Amino acid sequence: MPRPDEFGLIARYFAPLTEGDPGAFDLSDDAAILRHDARREIVATTDCMVSGVHFTDDDGPDAIARKLLRVNLSDLAAKGARPVSYLLALALPRGTDETWLARFTKGLAEDQKTYGIHLVGGDTTATDGGLVATITAFGEVPPGRMVRRNGARAGDDVYVSGTIGDAALGLAAKQGRLNALTGRQTEPLLDRLRYPEPRVALGQRLLGVATSGLDVSDGLVQDAGHLAECSRLAIDLELDAVPLSAEARLAVRMEPGRLRDMIAGGDDYELLFTAAPAAAPLLASLSRELQVPTTRIGRCRPGQGVVMLDGEGREIVLEKRGFRHF
Amino acid sequence: MPRPDEFGLIARYFAPLTEGDPGAFDLSDDAAILRHDARREIVATTDCMVSGVHFTDDDGPDAIARKLLRVNLSDLAAKGARPVSYLLALALPRGTDETWLARFTKGLAEDQKTYGIHLVGGDTTATDGGLVATITAFGEVPPGRMVRRNGARAGDDVYVSGTIGDAALGLAAKQGRLNALTGRQTEPLLDRLRYPEPRVALGQRLLGVATSGLDVSDGLVQDAGHLAECSRLAIDLELDAVPLSAEARLAVRMEPGRLRDMIAGGDDYELLFTAAPAAAPLLASLSRELQVPTTRIGRCRPGQGVVMLDGEGREIVLEKRGFRHF
Repeated sequence: MPRPDEFGLIARYFAPLTEGDPGAFDLSDDAAILRHDARREIVATTDCMVSGVHFTDDDGPDAIARKLLRVNLSDLAAKGARPVSYLLALALPRGTDETWLARFTKGLAEDQKTYGIHLVGGDTTATDGGLVATITAFGEVPPGRMVRRNGARAGDDVYVSGTIGDAALGLAAKQGRLNALTGRQTEPLLDRLRYPEPRVALGQRLLGVATSGLDVSDGLVQDAGHLAECSRLAIDLELDAVPLSAEARLAVRMEPGRLRDMIAGGDDYELLFTAAPAAAPLLASLSRELQVPTTRIGRCRPGQGVVMLDGEGREIVLEKRGFRHF
Repeated sequence: MPRPDEFGLIARYFAPLTEGDPGAFDLSDDAAILRHDARREIVATTDCMVSGVHFTDDDGPDAIARKLLRVNLSDLAAKGARPVSYLLALALPRGTDETWLARFTKGLAEDQKTYGIHLVGGDTTATDGGLVATITAFGEVPPGRMVRRNGARAGDDVYVSGTIGDAALGLAAKQGRLNALTGRQTEPLLDRLRYPEPRVALGQRLLGVATSGLDVSDGLVQDAGHLAECSRLAIDLELDAVPLSAEARLAVRMEPGRLRDMIAGGDDYELLFTAAPAAAPLLASLSRELQVPTTRIGRCRPGQGVVMLDGEGREIVLEKRGFRHF
């Protein structure tokens, strides 16, 4: 990371984010040593966020920083990993000023405390385009225990944490496409879009319980499709079972058509996982202990693909299944 | 990495780059497990390259891919690390076609073979701007042995591998600012700019020999300044000792002023390191064995800063010392 004209900025804003990890060398070297528990495996994931695609210029730098970190933490959570450290690569628009860096790193500092992760290295470069920020995050799991996408078995139940569709509604509100709700009613939805809540504690407790899992980032139906495809089976989802927040329920009551967008919308960052039916009591008790809802929304069976069922068990044909990246 | 409309492209172009590493899960999961020798530490480094800053649109996708990988390998080499694996995050301009991906990944595949590294994961997203590509590379070192920037001692000699200034001349040629040489004479200089040669084998052999080191990416004088500052001493460099290629010697003979730009120009990706005077015979024998020149170009002494000396030991005042990122 360090280059001479960056030295001061790095020392002031980024070095404190290492929280004294000796492997980060105060960000004064070319590389980091990844410290970890030798009895555990290192899980590594990387996510890249782009101005105009994942955030807009009116999102504050602290919100951008926190979302980027949380998106990576959500991947670690889905794999059952305990967060450890991360690397940050920034392509900064020319002329980015110190105030921006101060706010960006303040956002990171806050979330580091919340989720127990710290910076160990990075790279900063200038760009003539918009901000592109990449985090590579590291976590730990007991050897061979990472929650995979391919472990679901026919007969397993399908669960999702928290509520689905709030971020999609938040995006609609942000774009002026959600007039059914008042400003006060949309506020929590905008918050969910800005600040996804990675299910870090829940994810670690799902080790040995979840047979497969991922985080819902591209839309519930599409991500369920990943589990189905990787596990080589079919998933039936029950639309009426999909957990909604109070605000989302209100929006759907006013405009029932919204629901289809919500289950295809991205940015939920909830955990979607499968577990044997026998795990139901354990999951209920985990939910109570961690105060994170987990809701059974479907079941795995032999076959392929994802089928969405209505209250009478009839298939609902979905046009839009999720976010397309290209 | 995997998202449904990317599945086919990932399976075809990126999954083969994992070379069957079981920790990469064929790029079909959300994260990788970093496999490594349990008796070694993991060295991690990240570098980000931006269209219009680090490369231009007329650089082919294979050249961009190879330079990005090599820049990261150069960091590992400077730290004495054996390359192991890497993650790739791509922000791709909308409309990037399959041919581009085919050429980009072909470049990666070739260099993976040369340098003994493989892909274990990544992220792909679209951007309305130019290409931004980030690699996070992992290597291994024996515990506590990573070559640091801060280990130089007064009295140590300063060495550099290969030759300096070729890439700066290549850039001048590319920009039409090098008319002293013929097209045939500039070709090897353009090659050095496009395809830096990370000193991976040499770097690993410097473990226990080099007291400090880094790779020259921002200009010889500026990077020597990093070693001096981190090691809290002064470095005297001898301009006449700086190793030049035949083409660079010719360019300097035609235009002596070029030399100053060359020692301040970036993109050399040679190893700059310090070693005790007693290590000289060992370094000479290493150079012969690996067929990589290492040249003594200066010495460390108490004090601070970098002083460039002419043939008579007089200080040369330099206006431009290196590449500025902001």
